[in-house]
Amino acid sequence: MVQASICTIGDEILIGQIVDTNSSKIASALEDIGVKVTRMVSFGDVREEIIRTLESELRQNEIVVVTGGLGPTKDDITRSALAELSGSTRYVENRKQSEIIERILHSRGLDVLDINRAQALVPDRCEVILNRLGTAPVMVFRFAGNDFGHPCTLYSLPGVPYEAEGALPDIIDDIRRHHSLTAIHHRSIMTCGVAESALAKKLEDWEDSLPEDMHLAYLPDPVKGVRLRLSIYGGVREDEEKRIGNEFAKLGLLLGNIVYADYDTTLQEVIGKLLKRSGKTVSAAESCTGGTISQLLASVPGASAYYLGSVTSYAAEVKENILGVSPSIIGKYGVVSSECAAAMAEGVRRITGSDFAISTTGIAGPTGGTGENPVGTVWVGVSSGTGTETVRFRYGNDRIRNIERFASSALDVLRKKIESDTGNSESNLNK
Amino acid sequence: MVQASICTIGDEILIGQIVDTNSSKIASALEDIGVKVTRMVSFGDVREEIIRTLESELRQNEIVVVTGGLGPTKDDITRSALAELSGSTRYVENRKQSEIIERILHSRGLDVLDINRAQALVPDRCEVILNRLGTAPVMVFRFAGNDFGHPCTLYSLPGVPYEAEGALPDIIDDIRRHHSLTAIHHRSIMTCGVAESALAKKLEDWEDSLPEDMHLAYLPDPVKGVRLRLSIYGGVREDEEKRIGNEFAKLGLLLGNIVYADYDTTLQEVIGKLLKRSGKTVSAAESCTGGTISQLLASVPGASAYYLGSVTSYAAEVKENILGVSPSIIGKYGVVSSECAAAMAEGVRRITGSDFAISTTGIAGPTGGTGENPVGTVWVGVSSGTGTETVRFRYGNDRIRNIERFASSALDVLRKKIESDTGNSESNLNK
Repeated sequence: MVQASICTIGDEILIGQIVDTNSSKIASALEDIGVKVTRMVSFGDVREEIIRTLESELRQNEIVVVTGGLGPTKDDITRSALAELSGSTRYVENRKQSEIIERILHSRGLDVLDINRAQALVPDRCEVILNRLGTAPVMVFRFAGNDFGHPCTLYSLPGVPYEAEGALPDIIDDIRRHHSLTAIHHRSIMTCGVAESALAKKLEDWEDSLPEDMHLAYLPDPVKGVRLRLSIYGGVREDEEKRIGNEFAKLGLLLGNIVYADYDTTLQEVIGKLLKRSGKTVSAAESCTGGTISQLLASVPGASAYYLGSVTSYAAEVKENILGVSPSIIGKYGVVSSECAAAMAEGVRRITGSDFAISTTGIAGPTGGTGENPVGTVWVGVSSGTGTETVRFRYGNDRIRNIERFASSALDVLRKKIESDTGNSESNLNK
Repeated sequence: MVQASICTIGDEILIGQIVDTNSSKIASALEDIGVKVTRMVSFGDVREEIIRTLESELRQNEIVVVTGGLGPTKDDITRSALAELSGSTRYVENRKQSEIIERILHSRGLDVLDINRAQALVPDRCEVILNRLGTAPVMVFRFAGNDFGHPCTLYSLPGVPYEAEGALPDIIDDIRRHHSLTAIHHRSIMTCGVAESALAKKLEDWEDSLPEDMHLAYLPDPVKGVRLRLSIYGGVREDEEKRIGNEFAKLGLLLGNIVYADYDTTLQEVIGKLLKRSGKTVSAAESCTGGTISQLLASVPGASAYYLGSVTSYAAEVKENILGVSPSIIGKYGVVSSECAAAMAEGVRRITGSDFAISTTGIAGPTGGTGENPVGTVWVGVSSGTGTETVRFRYGNDRIRNIERFASSALDVLRKKIESDTGNSESNLNK
């Protein structure tokens, strides 16, 4: 199996000023084509460290993907380290990348500066994959067997996440052409509402009965819920797909309604598909989640087909004046109550005219809870033509985590309501 | 200078299913106390790989912080690898962690399963730092000089981000007690609205004149803008603070109004501080940003003191019926127009009664642009008692990135309006 290492260069990562999101995207793309990522390494903008680490990774892997260190500013020295590593003797201008640099800067109304132009210069021993979204080109260095003990390839990508992501398809194509790849089989199933340890207990017997070459992984995410991933490495493609499919079907039966999809996706994507398929619309009324549900619903391309809008009613007056929640409900039950959640969902459905509406009202913390409603409590309301329901959830004390879990729980309540009203589901396992 | 390596264990990271956010938080905390992070390494749930990599990192660093691989489920083998690495001969129960496990699971209404109880068992050669937020304790292994060539410490943290973050203060305390640390001096300045390369051009002469031991780094972030970080490693504390302060003041003068704070923060935090100080409130009307501005404003603890709420008006009818945007404005100028942005900001200010209001209307893409308003165009409106203004921004074709930049641009327009109306600023450099 072809092995790869993903390297990230930049002091800003080592001092914790930015989170490395590139490595995850690159790993996912490599995984898809059956390349096994063995390591990810981040290290500093120090010439000797760059060369030493890349040499070591090239000795242990056939593919090394490097991101970062190619910006126009003075703290970036990756390119000259790569020139040395590859035995390049001079820099040559890539004319096509020069044209892209000019086009991009002009379209943003910016002058083309010398430091921008210099980004189209590459070491003579590399091939270029154009970066159409940014200024620094992708550099490809191919090493014969005598350099690092085996033939291997180094890809150097820009560090800006959307540029790195944009360059990935070309890099994957290049890897396919230059390496003979073995298959990896993964199937993911998405669950929401049951904790990792309770899932493990539920699946214990089945998991113990799995064939030796199959592996189940638990991948909890505060917004997505727990993903379960079943894997086989290598083997004959047709047979493996059938074997993994059989075990997958058993898994679906064991899990039932907590499964929201039988492939890797998100609650908001699933809700979008269910609504599009049934020609229905949705709106949201948010208190403690502060716009997070709206932001998640709107993040799906094409969301305007079914997402009408939302009201974030942080202040009680906004709940009353815009959503039409009766002051007597707030006076009698408080804003964190089943009654208020129901009135918010009904209110936003009425003023937007949507088919479905979801609402949240709770206490994200870190302070502000009461005996009856401690920090971490949320009431979720869901309303449609078939009626209004409310559900209470209780989580912990961490504000950001609570907001994420409240939003996720609310989306899952909405998902179940849409499934129940429309008779549709995004999982084929529990049909 | 004490050196550290941060290691992350988990196949889910190597296949790109989750992004490693722990390493960044740990690095930031280490940096603050003058520990230099030299490397971050992620590798798989494979016993031999765990032992081999940790041995290598312990030889090169005095501190190794490990996250992940401590969950209750079967795919986690970190603990037994650590037992082997440390020469432990048996597992002992940590009673205090057992009590925490029971308390946490009971508070969530869950049964305590055997796999939960087993998490309180630790190798006999480790010290325990209690994990008060989760089930797996932090394990501390201290190695004398003869194990890896120098005295060194390994900290093993749970992989769940908020648990790892929660354990950090105790780990930092432990490091302070066991290592003699040298100082690192960083000063960060936050800018918004000017691209990295244009900033670099503006600062070129000043940067060339910097003393040899000072270093400027450019840290672009789609939501925060470009952070500039000036650093000195080592040296005498008092003198360094003064030297870095002098250069920092020059930097502030060169940058002027694009600076929104003279320390590491976010636009939404700064807006919160400016509003609290002046006793003013804010609301938002969002179209293309779909709740992102609301979510950012609400993410600040204590936001309910100044943030009243928002309307996400994805559908034109919501703009008209809730925000009161005149159909004739939409008919004559379209929804993506200065006039519509102004009417949205004025509308949400009117219905919420806030002092300030911000609005966005644009085309996030990936499709849907016109000749006049290509994908990536946004109109931002800002309204207060002193009047309403609109600004247009143009970015690229990437939907998620556009939403982030639209939101960030809008928050910066709001920041400038509040500064101008109230005469306050969060930077002392341009006063």
